[in-house]
Amino acid sequence: MSYQRRNVAHLAPYTPGEQPDSEHVIKLNTNENPYPPANEVLEAISSVNGDMLRRYPQPTAEAFRQTAAKVHELSPDMIISTNGGDELLRLAITVFCEPRTGDHTRGGLAISQPTYSLFTTLGQIHDTPVTQIPLGDDWSLAKDFSDIVRHNDCRLAILVNPHAPTGCLRSLSQLEAIARQLQEHAVLLVDEAYVDFAAHDAISLLRKNNSLDNVLLLRTLSKGYSLAGLRFGYGLGHPSLIEALTKARDSYANDVISQVTAIAALEHRDQAVKTWQAVKKERSRLTMKLTERGFDVVPSESNFLLCQPAKSGPTAKTIYESLKKQGIFVRYFDQSRLCDRLRITVGQPAETDALLLAIDAM
Amino acid sequence: MSYQRRNVAHLAPYTPGEQPDSEHVIKLNTNENPYPPANEVLEAISSVNGDMLRRYPQPTAEAFRQTAAKVHELSPDMIISTNGGDELLRLAITVFCEPRTGDHTRGGLAISQPTYSLFTTLGQIHDTPVTQIPLGDDWSLAKDFSDIVRHNDCRLAILVNPHAPTGCLRSLSQLEAIARQLQEHAVLLVDEAYVDFAAHDAISLLRKNNSLDNVLLLRTLSKGYSLAGLRFGYGLGHPSLIEALTKARDSYANDVISQVTAIAALEHRDQAVKTWQAVKKERSRLTMKLTERGFDVVPSESNFLLCQPAKSGPTAKTIYESLKKQGIFVRYFDQSRLCDRLRITVGQPAETDALLLAIDAM
Repeated sequence: MSYQRRNVAHLAPYTPGEQPDSEHVIKLNTNENPYPPANEVLEAISSVNGDMLRRYPQPTAEAFRQTAAKVHELSPDMIISTNGGDELLRLAITVFCEPRTGDHTRGGLAISQPTYSLFTTLGQIHDTPVTQIPLGDDWSLAKDFSDIVRHNDCRLAILVNPHAPTGCLRSLSQLEAIARQLQEHAVLLVDEAYVDFAAHDAISLLRKNNSLDNVLLLRTLSKGYSLAGLRFGYGLGHPSLIEALTKARDSYANDVISQVTAIAALEHRDQAVKTWQAVKKERSRLTMKLTERGFDVVPSESNFLLCQPAKSGPTAKTIYESLKKQGIFVRYFDQSRLCDRLRITVGQPAETDALLLAIDAM
Repeated sequence: MSYQRRNVAHLAPYTPGEQPDSEHVIKLNTNENPYPPANEVLEAISSVNGDMLRRYPQPTAEAFRQTAAKVHELSPDMIISTNGGDELLRLAITVFCEPRTGDHTRGGLAISQPTYSLFTTLGQIHDTPVTQIPLGDDWSLAKDFSDIVRHNDCRLAILVNPHAPTGCLRSLSQLEAIARQLQEHAVLLVDEAYVDFAAHDAISLLRKNNSLDNVLLLRTLSKGYSLAGLRFGYGLGHPSLIEALTKARDSYANDVISQVTAIAALEHRDQAVKTWQAVKKERSRLTMKLTERGFDVVPSESNFLLCQPAKSGPTAKTIYESLKKQGIFVRYFDQSRLCDRLRITVGQPAETDALLLAIDAM
């Protein structure tokens, strides 16, 4: 006997990138920061004592909200902390999108295609209709993106910026135009998971005089702050959106250790900034080296590159498998428009060198 | 403009017990263990290094599942780890209960009344019908509990055992009878958050030859293991239930620090057992002392007491407020059947003494 709902039974669950046990691999497959977090972050973890652990944490991570408010020059009521950015995505779908009712397929979620595949999975778990809007040949957003969202009566649109898995950065004016077109209709969630490596973010859309009450930005400490292991994300947006999301949030989403760690990470942001600079420098070098080898590389504003191997050489899949055998993990997506490409995380210079050496030996 | 769904807009969010900032209060309001976790648990936290934090954690906490399997004498595929027990509750509702569709009010959640108020909140967030089945005058389960669940076509029934907020323990035979009556119809989730302080648990229902494929047990490290700050819970159940819940789980629900900490907690369970013995001893003393003062105390198998002050003295609400002014926090529920009672967490002996002194001075 199966007790699960039909939509869950039919669900193909999200497949995270491989997390090999060994520390002796070169891991360029899940976009982690190649440099460790600041020492002050580790010290914050060591400061946790038995009495802090024994008690429930502050439910809404108020101290973190205060710190993040200072860093982003927003008010604390515009910030919600979550168990990784993924929890913010789930919350937004839960709060804004309607589950399917019979043949009624309105009130759903809109995303671009391709994009982070978890969006579709979360939509299916909530059993809300998911509208996939294809990107152009140059990975640009469809010109009628907002029209489609409105026509399908979607209540939430998610755009990753810089985009994954291409690394393209949408302009602020394009995001603002979409948000304005969606006002009174839908929330625009800009997933800024990779924004620390980009030329600009979209925070100005939330500042005064913009009056955009339908923009929500997702941030995470996983990439920029070298804390993928910590599961700490947060949302920035209009107080009315934050209040709604907070009502649906698990009562104590962030444990006490992650709260003090996240505060330390933001307070010592200057240490993280140095890693962003190093990654951007290495991104230029890796782009150049791959291009020299005949790869077609999408110009990236993120900490990864989407690239298409030279037609004359081995296929993307062959390269992926061969590298894996040598202990070098990159990401291969067996899906339309991506199956002839690889997504390679920007690592430390020595990791780039090892990767190039392996490619040259093929 | 409000973008949230109607059920979220109408939601009265769950109110956690007060978490006062000061460490100089006597906190007997949220059922925390009065003793700190084992030293080995703190050592596990200190062992976390930058490279562990930089990378994503193992998505499904396999090492924890192995450890928990050994402790509970079950197989790892019968275990799911979650971000606090609360996440397991949300997952179960998401996976087994149907959202409302028009006037259709079937496929919902069944709970007893009174019970942990988060159940109703989570039901409302999922917009599933919630059937509340009143307990008897002696807090016993309704004799026709299963009949009502089946009649209302509920897909999930949640019972807390030992029950909160009374501390009553249901017998294994009663739970087994309910589970058997619900087979082919609904999942029975037994919330064993407080089971470490009770005379028995319900794990035998999951062992071989019972063939109960619809029983799910909730466990948490918050109470018994003095780790409310950590947010680590887990579920035990038939592999088919665990598999379904895992599909709907956030991709990396448990961070790397909480994974190593939870493993250390289970591996040093003997340290926790000592705190359970101390709490049970103090529970007897507090029960006796309150009874001597004319309180009507429900015999408790948990780490808290539900008690009704003597009719001749100050009301429960007056006592609650007076204690709070003196820095002693107990729990008062302003709701039917509970508003003339207090729920008092069993603390250390000195905390009991301070509480009794304050009550005697009223």
